Amino acid sequence: MASEITDIAGVYGSGMNCGIKPGKNDLAFLFVPDAVACAAVVTRNIFCAPCIVHTKNCAARGVIKALVVNSGNANAATGDQGARNVRTTAEAAAKFLGLKPEEVAVASTGIIGVPLPIEKLQSGLEQLLESPRVKNGDAVSAAILTTDLCSKKVFLQKEIGGKLISIAGIAKGSGMIAPNMATMLGYLALDLALPQETLQSIFVEAVDASFNMVSVDTDTSTSDMALLFSTGAIKLELTEQHLDAVSELIRQACVELAKMIARDGEGATKLIEVTVAGAQNLSDARVAAKSIIDSPLVKTAIHGADPNWGRVMMAIGKHPSVVVETERVKVYFGEHLIFANSKATDFEEQVLVEELKQPTVRIKVELGVGQAEATAWGCDLTKGYIDINTDYN
Amino acid sequence: MASEITDIAGVYGSGMNCGIKPGKNDLAFLFVPDAVACAAVVTRNIFCAPCIVHTKNCAARGVIKALVVNSGNANAATGDQGARNVRTTAEAAAKFLGLKPEEVAVASTGIIGVPLPIEKLQSGLEQLLESPRVKNGDAVSAAILTTDLCSKKVFLQKEIGGKLISIAGIAKGSGMIAPNMATMLGYLALDLALPQETLQSIFVEAVDASFNMVSVDTDTSTSDMALLFSTGAIKLELTEQHLDAVSELIRQACVELAKMIARDGEGATKLIEVTVAGAQNLSDARVAAKSIIDSPLVKTAIHGADPNWGRVMMAIGKHPSVVVETERVKVYFGEHLIFANSKATDFEEQVLVEELKQPTVRIKVELGVGQAEATAWGCDLTKGYIDINTDYN
Repeated sequence: MASEITDIAGVYGSGMNCGIKPGKNDLAFLFVPDAVACAAVVTRNIFCAPCIVHTKNCAARGVIKALVVNSGNANAATGDQGARNVRTTAEAAAKFLGLKPEEVAVASTGIIGVPLPIEKLQSGLEQLLESPRVKNGDAVSAAILTTDLCSKKVFLQKEIGGKLISIAGIAKGSGMIAPNMATMLGYLALDLALPQETLQSIFVEAVDASFNMVSVDTDTSTSDMALLFSTGAIKLELTEQHLDAVSELIRQACVELAKMIARDGEGATKLIEVTVAGAQNLSDARVAAKSIIDSPLVKTAIHGADPNWGRVMMAIGKHPSVVVETERVKVYFGEHLIFANSKATDFEEQVLVEELKQPTVRIKVELGVGQAEATAWGCDLTKGYIDINTDYN
Repeated sequence: MASEITDIAGVYGSGMNCGIKPGKNDLAFLFVPDAVACAAVVTRNIFCAPCIVHTKNCAARGVIKALVVNSGNANAATGDQGARNVRTTAEAAAKFLGLKPEEVAVASTGIIGVPLPIEKLQSGLEQLLESPRVKNGDAVSAAILTTDLCSKKVFLQKEIGGKLISIAGIAKGSGMIAPNMATMLGYLALDLALPQETLQSIFVEAVDASFNMVSVDTDTSTSDMALLFSTGAIKLELTEQHLDAVSELIRQACVELAKMIARDGEGATKLIEVTVAGAQNLSDARVAAKSIIDSPLVKTAIHGADPNWGRVMMAIGKHPSVVVETERVKVYFGEHLIFANSKATDFEEQVLVEELKQPTVRIKVELGVGQAEATAWGCDLTKGYIDINTDYN
């Protein structure tokens, strides 16, 4: 059964260990020679890495047709040499693939501020790109991981306009996850032909509702990006209905990856899903949902299966700009209504404790002032997070 | 030697255990019968507790002359009964103290959403206020603590205009500390007579530079407030020079308390002090300093004495609105310049490790675009924080 990004026709890729980190895959490429469009969303961190600057420029100039990505080193805050290393990488890959350097996106993830061992990367690329038309998607999804415990992959299909449309994607997440545009690595491929501008605007919306609604630790990476290639293999009349359907398919794929990122957040033992409904507008719904997802006190309470729901109220109230009618607010843990009419309901504490012990904890808040709704995903805060991050070097 | 808030002439107070929590003091009062002014700053959390609403109204109507405060229960998200309990408390205290109910501020801190045991509080007040002109400051500072490990007190004196001016204060902090106006409890008394409006505007500025620059965990409490009483005992011509001097004295007292709150943050083993200089304006300097102080990845790295300075860059860059010239940014750990000209300097890693092992870790960042400067205080993120907050009930 198809499950890899390279199971999409016209998408090639492989990965390897080139010696940046011991043992595990740390270098990969994706190659979509006939791509008709490629949407790109990158981090807004001011100290973004030079690979982000390069990839943004590529996206502005034309259609990106390949990606070289390494893990184990973010090549960020590495001065002029860092920027030169990105150019070297793009030029080397372009030569092997018969592309222009501006058609090759470059991504790096890992520690910030350490010079990239460019020789290792170059000799790795020589090996990897000697015969690039291979379909080792598994090696690609493994090569982009850092402290992730598992690969993150999605493969979805949907009949649209009488044709079976496929989308596949991979992602890496774990820590430094609080996107501002896109924070993490996410690479997707779609076989439907879409014009560049259409693909970009659909993808931006999908990223806003998925990757940008994930938070592991409120920190925003300097290095991360999301790309969506359109291979152009399938042509379809782009009616409004078809565009809606494909937008929904893209959104679904991004949401699936986003949830995998949240569940595998550094040290996480649980996925937390927070839905805020009844908001005055989408922005309020998103701010409130993310405020709850981001709260260390909510995260630790859920880790301990402690139904300390007052912390949810606190987190909603942290942003004075969010319009709330406090006496109309309702809060649910799973299906259980626990707060209404400005006070706690007569819930049974033990029932809530059981609810919070589930591998996925769902919190729903009704703000009671409008119709807008948003969902955010995150994870619990545990000693595992502290262990991982007190000595990352 | 004077060290308690009740060592200020005209300031009375005491504390006791009234049975809200086992063993420790959980109820206290302050009484400043001849107060000529009282500045108040309260939380901006939308779900602020009814005691906050009451105290805000008191401050708007006239001069607050007393405070009743309990710990162990926040009386927040407790519906109409919560609001009635605040009125009951203010009325009972007013009767004993010969004041109007709107001259009595009320504060509660502790768990959210649990009904306040008002009978315990009332019978405690009867005992406490039977002879209110006592000076047991120590019992007051102990009664406002929750998960704090120690009392937080300041006593400062300064000669202004030929007179010795004294200010004393107490605070409680620990968790849910990311102020938005004032998050924690902080009570201060000054013996200099100042008009209400002058005191309020000086105090707001002092709070912005002190309590509002502290972060333990980015969460903002629903219950917390800061009050500054002026006893009026000392009269002075209020020249600009004298006002500047007293403003500085008030700011110093607030900063001292803020630093104690940060050092005693839940689970904390270190005080972190971040100064951002060379910012375009004060707002940018404060946002950048707090972004570094708030970052879980900076906090865990410092906990592990891991000189992963890239995380400082990441945290500065998280807020795209902060004006930064990336190539002019300098970062110091203690006295050591570790980042300049867009890359790491030739620092010795072991020297930085030693720096990060100190009980106070100082980080300084030069943004290189202006003259504004701000300092924020926080603490490391440890397993102790997780332990305390996975089971707070």
